[in-house]
Amino acid sequence: MFKLNLLISALALAGASLTASAVEWQSLPSKAPEPADNPSTPAKVELGKMLYHDPRLSSSGTVSCNSCHNVMGGGEDNRGGSVGVRGQVGGRSAPTVWNSAFNSVQFWDGRAPSLEAQAKGPVTNPIEMGMKSWDDVVARLKTIPGYVQAFSAAFGGKESITTDNAAKAIAAYERTLITPNSAYDKYVNGDKNAMTEQQVRGMNTFAEVGCGSCHSGPAFNGPQLPEGTGFFMKFPTYQNGYLEAQYNLSVDLGRYDVTKNEADKHLYKVPTLRNVALTAPYFHNGKVKSLEDAVKVMAKLQLNKDLTPEQTGDLVAFLNALTGEFPKQEMPRLPSYADKTFDYE
Amino acid sequence: MFKLNLLISALALAGASLTASAVEWQSLPSKAPEPADNPSTPAKVELGKMLYHDPRLSSSGTVSCNSCHNVMGGGEDNRGGSVGVRGQVGGRSAPTVWNSAFNSVQFWDGRAPSLEAQAKGPVTNPIEMGMKSWDDVVARLKTIPGYVQAFSAAFGGKESITTDNAAKAIAAYERTLITPNSAYDKYVNGDKNAMTEQQVRGMNTFAEVGCGSCHSGPAFNGPQLPEGTGFFMKFPTYQNGYLEAQYNLSVDLGRYDVTKNEADKHLYKVPTLRNVALTAPYFHNGKVKSLEDAVKVMAKLQLNKDLTPEQTGDLVAFLNALTGEFPKQEMPRLPSYADKTFDYE
Repeated sequence: MFKLNLLISALALAGASLTASAVEWQSLPSKAPEPADNPSTPAKVELGKMLYHDPRLSSSGTVSCNSCHNVMGGGEDNRGGSVGVRGQVGGRSAPTVWNSAFNSVQFWDGRAPSLEAQAKGPVTNPIEMGMKSWDDVVARLKTIPGYVQAFSAAFGGKESITTDNAAKAIAAYERTLITPNSAYDKYVNGDKNAMTEQQVRGMNTFAEVGCGSCHSGPAFNGPQLPEGTGFFMKFPTYQNGYLEAQYNLSVDLGRYDVTKNEADKHLYKVPTLRNVALTAPYFHNGKVKSLEDAVKVMAKLQLNKDLTPEQTGDLVAFLNALTGEFPKQEMPRLPSYADKTFDYE
Repeated sequence: MFKLNLLISALALAGASLTASAVEWQSLPSKAPEPADNPSTPAKVELGKMLYHDPRLSSSGTVSCNSCHNVMGGGEDNRGGSVGVRGQVGGRSAPTVWNSAFNSVQFWDGRAPSLEAQAKGPVTNPIEMGMKSWDDVVARLKTIPGYVQAFSAAFGGKESITTDNAAKAIAAYERTLITPNSAYDKYVNGDKNAMTEQQVRGMNTFAEVGCGSCHSGPAFNGPQLPEGTGFFMKFPTYQNGYLEAQYNLSVDLGRYDVTKNEADKHLYKVPTLRNVALTAPYFHNGKVKSLEDAVKVMAKLQLNKDLTPEQTGDLVAFLNALTGEFPKQEMPRLPSYADKTFDYE
């Protein structure tokens, strides 16, 4: 159905040293690419915003997409494991929804090739939003007059409330969640005063140390690949018993869980560094609580380097320059279920 | 501290029959009264909006005021019992925050004499937001630079992050949550086409049957009393073993839990009927799932009347005319904890 098989073997790049001038510094596009079968329209985005913020897409009526990917903050929940229905805690840390439109695959293990495919996952995950099936979601939405109207406006026709259309609308909304004009973007676009001296030093360190080998491209999440292609790296690349034990890095098998290929053990999607200063705790399991520690752990486990305190400080300063401008958003109105209530668990 | 003792004994009013012309029909004010010690300012409202929507005011970092009092919908969660930290379910149904500024007391049992007092409750309730103390909340807020700035802008000074100021800001935000211009308001203000014929019939029935004996005033929650004065009614007023068993109405002792006065057993604050069509399920325990059933149960248990199907339909139509206009709201930006994370449970 989707091309998920092309795994760019980027391991050879790891540990490479680059000079700042050798890195192709790119600013963030103001618009995300759209798949041919889901062009964005205002009606679709508005519907997607409603669905994204609607806790009635969960079995308990209490968990929405926004519960774990909070767009009022850094686009996630600042927790190690996210909390789903019945207080259940998930095993991986929620990635940010901001700029997720620039990921070529979704989820830490890349199991969704598109935002549309991703949107279908958590709703029926028993420890996340807990719905028994998308058929149940569709049945619920069909009883809410405001959704009948909003789906019709977005997709046309009377039978427009479908799983695919719900996912398309959510994805269209998520494609508007872009944070341009960070200090870094302004600097790259010519405003040499946009970053502090320390941030500029950190930018050079970022290239010299080798961070840019993997965290490349405008979203710092790897080369721009077609949607559905993954850019995965092994974490840890360099073994270190002490750090692996400290941060519990051996348990999760990463992409192996999806492919069952031995070579995919401990491989993860390279995450964006955009707004990384807002998204502690860090890594797939959220075990590293500060950005400073995350930088040191990355350098050691991915590049086999011990950073000086100055390098670490400079890198953290640079990563803070990747915090962008968040577009103003009006709260959606969630349409009423006509003076009745669902049988929530 | 506050005058909570004045209980208006309205029992004598119950069962009274009124004609539509005898009821004083009032439209909703566009502005809520403000206490002398907490005048609203834009900076205070903006801070209050941030706090109201910030899940970091809970022990788990997952429950905000808005989780149970969702302003994107009818101002509550459309559940019987609300869900707090660790998936715990509360015993009473969350009242709507919309137009709560027009309540003279807060909570079903009226235990808070003001919005400011109410705001302090759920945060440290172990089954709601679960914080050990407000001191812990204040300590958390002080480590978030954006809150240091926002409290200073709202209250001035360096030591402006306090429990009282947090509650004042939340209350100031809540005083902006008013829904004017319902069909009923337009009708009362002279637009005789604003309500349907059935809604006008329902308005007359509302008066004739006696609903307006308790649900009076512009917010349909009783006479306008000074903040801190409660307007309570016994529910059920007329005993009915069948309905009491069906809807489990004997367990909760209502205001008695606050005062320990025998006369206060099963007394509850008369809730607003504004936007009641959006806030199913109904009553203090959320056991009645549709507005139609709520109307019938009220007539039987409070007025000892069996409504005809026509009366019930007309009353439901009229209650739908009380759904107001919801002001557009921009989503707040929740300030970051500077690339670190809290130790959430």
